[in-house]
Amino acid sequence: MNAPQPEFPTTTPSFTELLAQSRQPFPASRKSYLPGQLHADLRVPVRDIALTNGEQVSVYDTSGPYTDPDAQIDIRRGLPSLRAPWIDARGDSEWYVGRMRMALDDGGRSDEALRLKQLRAEAAGLQRQPRRAKSGANVTQMHYARRGIITPEMEYVALRENGRREWIAAYQQDAEREQRLVGNPLGASIPRIITPEFVREEVARGRAIIPANINHPEIEPMAIGRNFKVKINANIGNSAVTSSIEEEVEKLVWATRWGADNVMDLSTGKNIHTTRDWILRNSPVPIGTVPIYQALEKVGGVAEDLTWEIFRDTLVEQAEQGVDYFTIHAGVRLAFIHLTAQRRTGIVSRGGSIMAKWCMTHHRESFLYEHFEDICDIMKQYDVSFSLGDGLRPGSASDANDAAQFAELQTLGELTQIAWKHDVQTMIEGPGHVPMHLIQANMAEQLKHCHEAPFYTLGPLTIDIAPGYDHIASAIGAAMIGWMGTAMLCYVTPKEHLGLPDRDDVKQGIMAYKIAAHAADVAKGHPGARARDDALSQARFDFRWQDQFNLGLDPDTAQAYHDETLPKDAAKVAHFCSMCGPKFCSMKITQEVREFAAQKGLAEDAALAQGMQAKAQEFQQAGGQFYVPITPVN
Amino acid sequence: MNAPQPEFPTTTPSFTELLAQSRQPFPASRKSYLPGQLHADLRVPVRDIALTNGEQVSVYDTSGPYTDPDAQIDIRRGLPSLRAPWIDARGDSEWYVGRMRMALDDGGRSDEALRLKQLRAEAAGLQRQPRRAKSGANVTQMHYARRGIITPEMEYVALRENGRREWIAAYQQDAEREQRLVGNPLGASIPRIITPEFVREEVARGRAIIPANINHPEIEPMAIGRNFKVKINANIGNSAVTSSIEEEVEKLVWATRWGADNVMDLSTGKNIHTTRDWILRNSPVPIGTVPIYQALEKVGGVAEDLTWEIFRDTLVEQAEQGVDYFTIHAGVRLAFIHLTAQRRTGIVSRGGSIMAKWCMTHHRESFLYEHFEDICDIMKQYDVSFSLGDGLRPGSASDANDAAQFAELQTLGELTQIAWKHDVQTMIEGPGHVPMHLIQANMAEQLKHCHEAPFYTLGPLTIDIAPGYDHIASAIGAAMIGWMGTAMLCYVTPKEHLGLPDRDDVKQGIMAYKIAAHAADVAKGHPGARARDDALSQARFDFRWQDQFNLGLDPDTAQAYHDETLPKDAAKVAHFCSMCGPKFCSMKITQEVREFAAQKGLAEDAALAQGMQAKAQEFQQAGGQFYVPITPVN
Repeated sequence: MNAPQPEFPTTTPSFTELLAQSRQPFPASRKSYLPGQLHADLRVPVRDIALTNGEQVSVYDTSGPYTDPDAQIDIRRGLPSLRAPWIDARGDSEWYVGRMRMALDDGGRSDEALRLKQLRAEAAGLQRQPRRAKSGANVTQMHYARRGIITPEMEYVALRENGRREWIAAYQQDAEREQRLVGNPLGASIPRIITPEFVREEVARGRAIIPANINHPEIEPMAIGRNFKVKINANIGNSAVTSSIEEEVEKLVWATRWGADNVMDLSTGKNIHTTRDWILRNSPVPIGTVPIYQALEKVGGVAEDLTWEIFRDTLVEQAEQGVDYFTIHAGVRLAFIHLTAQRRTGIVSRGGSIMAKWCMTHHRESFLYEHFEDICDIMKQYDVSFSLGDGLRPGSASDANDAAQFAELQTLGELTQIAWKHDVQTMIEGPGHVPMHLIQANMAEQLKHCHEAPFYTLGPLTIDIAPGYDHIASAIGAAMIGWMGTAMLCYVTPKEHLGLPDRDDVKQGIMAYKIAAHAADVAKGHPGARARDDALSQARFDFRWQDQFNLGLDPDTAQAYHDETLPKDAAKVAHFCSMCGPKFCSMKITQEVREFAAQKGLAEDAALAQGMQAKAQEFQQAGGQFYVPITPVN
Repeated sequence: MNAPQPEFPTTTPSFTELLAQSRQPFPASRKSYLPGQLHADLRVPVRDIALTNGEQVSVYDTSGPYTDPDAQIDIRRGLPSLRAPWIDARGDSEWYVGRMRMALDDGGRSDEALRLKQLRAEAAGLQRQPRRAKSGANVTQMHYARRGIITPEMEYVALRENGRREWIAAYQQDAEREQRLVGNPLGASIPRIITPEFVREEVARGRAIIPANINHPEIEPMAIGRNFKVKINANIGNSAVTSSIEEEVEKLVWATRWGADNVMDLSTGKNIHTTRDWILRNSPVPIGTVPIYQALEKVGGVAEDLTWEIFRDTLVEQAEQGVDYFTIHAGVRLAFIHLTAQRRTGIVSRGGSIMAKWCMTHHRESFLYEHFEDICDIMKQYDVSFSLGDGLRPGSASDANDAAQFAELQTLGELTQIAWKHDVQTMIEGPGHVPMHLIQANMAEQLKHCHEAPFYTLGPLTIDIAPGYDHIASAIGAAMIGWMGTAMLCYVTPKEHLGLPDRDDVKQGIMAYKIAAHAADVAKGHPGARARDDALSQARFDFRWQDQFNLGLDPDTAQAYHDETLPKDAAKVAHFCSMCGPKFCSMKITQEVREFAAQKGLAEDAALAQGMQAKAQEFQQAGGQFYVPITPVN
């Protein structure tokens, strides 16, 4: 049995076939790349959607090279090292032999040596020599930012957040015409155009991070911060000995295709080291892990046998592989554990309970807390970002916002300042289970104690009675806290609390969270976020059915649902929908209102009255035809 | 083609079989009835869920007699007339011959006469002689309430809203121990216990309605108001000539089984009168309609041919059948139409555009507005409630909260006061498409202009780019506006904007809206709302899997998801879940923390420290066993 992780059918279609499918470009979409200015070699991806009216809409694209038909991809060699030249050019890191690899890294037992050998052979083409900072150097994006350096990663992020701003100009003018359309940032300060310098400032002050381990040069850089688009994270994990490279990579590609900005590899059990090679070398998005899971495997699952040395060794192992951020539950302090005693659901974080167990057993302060500066020393040699774990997060509405949760949050704030002393990028993990009326306090406390370090929440779930639908129960909380300032939302699937998400559950979870993140961007007034809504609404009003599907988050499902009722192609251009049918269409009326109002330039009702009179006669003369003429569709 | 309506497979299983399935009681659940005090003959339904630990949880039950195995139901005769004795006892209404039935009522044409004859024959057992108020009398619940009368309907509602408060006492004490658990009512004033007198006061001041046409005596009375549980509405509609009694009733039973508090019959096209007989006579929940749809059918779909006389005749027709509330778009005034000219998506309400078309064509004020008092005179003879339609609601985020929308809302407020002058119960319909940051203003404007008459919103959808997932995009807005004070939420299905919802879409829409409504109740601090969450969380913590499933909104789905991963029955009692697996369980750790903390009564960390030391030794002596002992499950 393993930690939370999707399990995928190993039956037909094979993962090789699924991977091929997942590489198909989206309908009417073309991947194109924006060039850099400060750094000319940048190629920042956007997805251009061609509309049937000749317009073009460009959207943020997380899918990496996989949806680019021109990209030559061999998952046994891994993706091209996009960032290698940038890292080289900085000249502050060096190749080195790296930590010696051990059977234990894969939780290997002798009886599995053979299988392990096969797996490693498969991964042979994915081995890379590790880099680390030269002695005394610090290779974090925060370190560069604080020295006034705008890295290629920072410019990349700026271009990516802006996308093609040209096309949204018209929509933005609408927005600026009326205050109601501008959004309410609730303390965020999002500039109309994201400049590379703005990205640098945000990273320098710790308000945004760019997870980018120097040993993961394959990533397309992205930013997590309240003044950027709200991002989402999807969790995947290996299926132990059953998994293959194709299977692992297909999960990853599937998740990023639908919009995962980050992916956490929560693998446990066997072959996790090798599986991580497969994932990292083929991932265009930052990868996060919870190193304590692997460390626990190394001590046979006995929490109290964990030591700083074993944990440290695991950090180095994963940093050398290229993991971009580590969830570390350093806020679970000995003194806080008893605060959970009266809770309804106690400690629900796996990492949190591992550390609680360790602290109780040894009656000692957490080694993660005591060695926090040592951890920083490792992080800054590779630019691994902290995701400070909320090991004491509430596991039910009735434990929300309690003393244990907020005591830990305050500690995470202290640790943030230590991390920043080392220029280590840091984000803060948040709950969990929180009713709507307690969500605001979570954001307020986090901003207060954690100095605007990016907040990264799991949901929160607003109710506890929806097993089977927790992606919805949590999307409500996620949208609200995203609006309030949370920078990244960790998805929840329909299987939460019940079982292991399968391929469709992963998609359902991602869809619910893309909705939450976009709703937050629109409410915050992220420049251009609303433009896509406007483009789709316009297509809806104009009966451009195909454009409606293609502008949506999931064109396949939208079109499939439409075709269930009106399968004929004729319906794709029909001036009606199955809601009202051909006999009557409210949109049609509006077009009449508009033409009419436009002709008469209705300034006031007097003009209206007169115009109406005239229009009334026109209508009657025209026989008051009311049906919308269309070719019949059964 | 027809108006929004679910279409159901006529293939196997037959609707008779489906209906039988839908009559199955929920797992571990028993329907029982609470007796009245003021009115001894009341039998108010609750669903008692027996937990495996001997506790019992009781929940609000919308499913009517259908889930009562003792109920003898013949859908060709209709449900028993629960309220008949109460209505008789009031002695203010009389039987009368009623309006003469016409072929046009069913949109009948000669070529369909035979089929129509068959359908009517089927419905023969469902014919009832109508009642109306005696000359000069007023039979509305509001009229009684204002005269200080507590009707059986009011006491029924009080008992129903309270449910079995005994079982939640313990949970309520928890809640009252800590302010954070109490909720934030945002202006609602929900008493700890709902008394019949409180219901009377709320109805008298118009802050709640009890939709209850005297010609629909079959209903189990329910209340719609901000100081009661948030309710949800599901839309159904006939499938024209293909439909059968079984099909129509099965849709209804399916919707109420999953939690629809109200159902709107949006049928259009043929046989709507007869279909309405089928639905009303078999419905335990209030039924709403949009009479203008049928009126439009009567004039062959030509909006400008509508007349007050035809509309009036349709109101009487439907009032005599027993429709409990009418959506009437009387706020679409001639002078407001040009305000929609610059909108991105114009007028999207079907009723709104019908009236706009009529006003434009004749260049006259809406006959609904001009005859509003005449309409009140009809409503009060049957106790039909107003649902004042928002014909100018926004159809996209970019039209939200604009001049047209708020001009109409203000008019609906004026009309509310006219309705109240006649003691006619009234609620107000709301949008629609509204980004999160504009939702609060909708509630504030409604409260300001409509004098706390119940608000009944469609969503609102927070974004426009999620076709195929609009039940989620709208559940976010629905939960928020429900918390802010909206009394009833009209569901949105995944097929919204795309096609006709099928049976599963209806369930998906209802689930999303039960989640939104419950999240709102919890946030508002509705007494006892949170208790069900607590009971489920406790079951989760105690590894009472079966109780987790049975306490959820959809036990079938929860159990099915769980069994996909851990099918063995052993897993139902296993002290682990598939998230962490048998090897490690965070809940187990918490139990250790708790026992320990309980023993030592940890007042402060000193005690903790000492206790920890001791506990540490215990652990080591016990060999620090860390695995959770369970029977292996593959």
